[in-house]
Amino acid sequence: MLTDFGRRDWYTAAMKGVILDILPHAVLVDITHDIPPGKVSAGSFVLAQCYREFPAETVFLAVVDPGVGTERVPIAVKAGSWTFVGPDNGLFVFLTHRFKEPRMEIRRIENTEFFKKKPSRTFHGRDIFAPAAAHRAAGRSFASIGPIQENLSGGNWPKRDFGADGKAEILYIDHFGNAIVDFSTENFPESMLVKKVAVSWKGRLLPFVETFAEVKPGNPLAYFGSTGHLEIAINGGNAAQSLGLKIGDIIDLRLPV
Amino acid sequence: MLTDFGRRDWYTAAMKGVILDILPHAVLVDITHDIPPGKVSAGSFVLAQCYREFPAETVFLAVVDPGVGTERVPIAVKAGSWTFVGPDNGLFVFLTHRFKEPRMEIRRIENTEFFKKKPSRTFHGRDIFAPAAAHRAAGRSFASIGPIQENLSGGNWPKRDFGADGKAEILYIDHFGNAIVDFSTENFPESMLVKKVAVSWKGRLLPFVETFAEVKPGNPLAYFGSTGHLEIAINGGNAAQSLGLKIGDIIDLRLPV
Amino acid sequence: MLTDFGRRDWYTAAMKGVILDILPHAVLVDITHDIPPGKVSAGSFVLAQCYREFPAETVFLAVVDPGVGTERVPIAVKAGSWTFVGPDNGLFVFLTHRFKEPRMEIRRIENTEFFKKKPSRTFHGRDIFAPAAAHRAAGRSFASIGPIQENLSGGNWPKRDFGADGKAEILYIDHFGNAIVDFSTENFPESMLVKKVAVSWKGRLLPFVETFAEVKPGNPLAYFGSTGHLEIAINGGNAAQSLGLKIGDIIDLRLPV
Repeated sequence: MLTDFGRRDWYTAAMKGVILDILPHAVLVDITHDIPPGKVSAGSFVLAQCYREFPAETVFLAVVDPGVGTERVPIAVKAGSWTFVGPDNGLFVFLTHRFKEPRMEIRRIENTEFFKKKPSRTFHGRDIFAPAAAHRAAGRSFASIGPIQENLSGGNWPKRDFGADGKAEILYIDHFGNAIVDFSTENFPESMLVKKVAVSWKGRLLPFVETFAEVKPGNPLAYFGSTGHLEIAINGGNAAQSLGLKIGDIIDLRLPV
Repeated sequence: MLTDFGRRDWYTAAMKGVILDILPHAVLVDITHDIPPGKVSAGSFVLAQCYREFPAETVFLAVVDPGVGTERVPIAVKAGSWTFVGPDNGLFVFLTHRFKEPRMEIRRIENTEFFKKKPSRTFHGRDIFAPAAAHRAAGRSFASIGPIQENLSGGNWPKRDFGADGKAEILYIDHFGNAIVDFSTENFPESMLVKKVAVSWKGRLLPFVETFAEVKPGNPLAYFGSTGHLEIAINGGNAAQSLGLKIGDIIDLRLPV
Repeated sequence: MLTDFGRRDWYTAAMKGVILDILPHAVLVDITHDIPPGKVSAGSFVLAQCYREFPAETVFLAVVDPGVGTERVPIAVKAGSWTFVGPDNGLFVFLTHRFKEPRMEIRRIENTEFFKKKPSRTFHGRDIFAPAAAHRAAGRSFASIGPIQENLSGGNWPKRDFGADGKAEILYIDHFGNAIVDFSTENFPESMLVKKVAVSWKGRLLPFVETFAEVKPGNPLAYFGSTGHLEIAINGGNAAQSLGLKIGDIIDLRLPV
């Protein structure tokens, strides 16, 4: 489960109650419920960084849904052996560049057996997405969910082209204040990355290292992090606070030639 | 589980350890641990909004217990097929207007097999309530918990009478900043509610709508929320912050005649 | 699981995915993920307060790991019937004064079957500790993890000597603002403690009581808390805020003679 519902109200509990009522021995994992309210792109990014660790047959229930009650469509996506359930608002676009047809299939949740009789207009997490995810996890076929939809809405997963200018954007700031940059080992041949990339922030060149300990405590560094992205951190500190880094800020890169 | 213990210490983990020691395959769900310290009424409200989603035989373990160590009584309540375990301080009063005898039964937790040999004086969550809940979930009969108690302490669930004055109180502010008002579809015939209710806050009439999208982003609205209560929100915003709404504030309603 | 990863990113979820991929029906319990970043001593303290509640065969996965990527060693500790997995940086030193050989055994995690093929340099939680914990919970023998190591690194569990000066340190401030003091029933004979200890903070004598209700709401008190430590609290209030208590502050004690 991944939502922007926070943890202090009853919203995630209501969803879990609905799931357990359908599938009493469900193994429930909270990815996070602390996505900033309505920030679909942050929800998408977080989900993209961890879904591959989960076992086959996992059902991901993701609800960051500022358009609940409007015409945005409830969908389920089958990608490899995983199923993703949530609103069709861009939350799952990261799947499009990882899974090609026929390994990916999108269906609208229209079979009324998959949701509550009278869904509320403001809490589809409880009334549509949770029951649909539970029925799917309980073994209902993917085809029975509803009709096929051709594409996902909400644009494509951002994919920048690193040319001569060598600009990259900060995608995410994590709990430790590490800045995760839109430049990853996925887009570049390993051989190129072995040679060091020159990383600068506001004209300041940051040492590109393999582990934090290569710089002294309190000093900044750049490295390829655990998600494969370039990250900027401070050894023993909070880079976002100390260097004033924010999502959307531009980092200068000089690629090896 | 619902508590005011927060999530950064070991208190909820200690309770879970105790439960798993008694019932190793317990399915544990955190409703929330972020009830404001000692605010029994907030704990009661949150629990009341979600317990109905959970399967039959669920045991609810709720500990918001500012009077721990005093004479307040540890109780268990059987309501329908659910069991509620916690202090008798008003946390479960919402059950009284939903369940009539014989569908509801209250028992004092006095059977020493249900709790630790030497309960501490300050952490009944770990020493009395968690083991009692685990033994009950493990299948021990409700009657074996202890003697029957006639009524719940801590007053009745608030029930206002909406007369000519048409005042309603804000009961709760959620994570999104939506204000939940003590006026619900439960107290009024559906037919009356189909006609629109006029909702005002400090003299400002709020549009009464069915979905957020009926007002422009940034604008306030009133609607019946997913719990059946009247709610005040801002489309894409935080109503509590923007409109200055607080728990206990009074909203003016003009009911249709 | 206990970490300093926070709850808003994907880090704990990635670990859980790895565990469930190895052991699909694992019962996962979050002790906390809100240890202050890099504060090994706080992680150690929290774990020490609750591990004894958990059933035999529990595997504790603890990652507060500011030295990830350096030469600090990944270890597993068998203590009684529990297994602890994490970095050898002091996180488990509390075990040393509870478990004597042969009831405690330390092994380096070196068997490559216990971790991912190519561990990242910055996220051993996902790549080493989570898979090692899962394989152990799945029944792999403790001896197969790797070679025996003689001692734990990271110093010994603090153990003060209360002499004539009667000084004790604040070890921890909990969610309620209660200050937990390094003076416990474990170090002193019960008979001595039945006589009251005189507790002072900045020259102010605090009433030593058994329950909060013995002082009026808003008043401070000292008592032996649920962990067996001396605690300082305010009935219905937040002692850390109101009295200005911080971790490391010194409390004056006069022991009964």
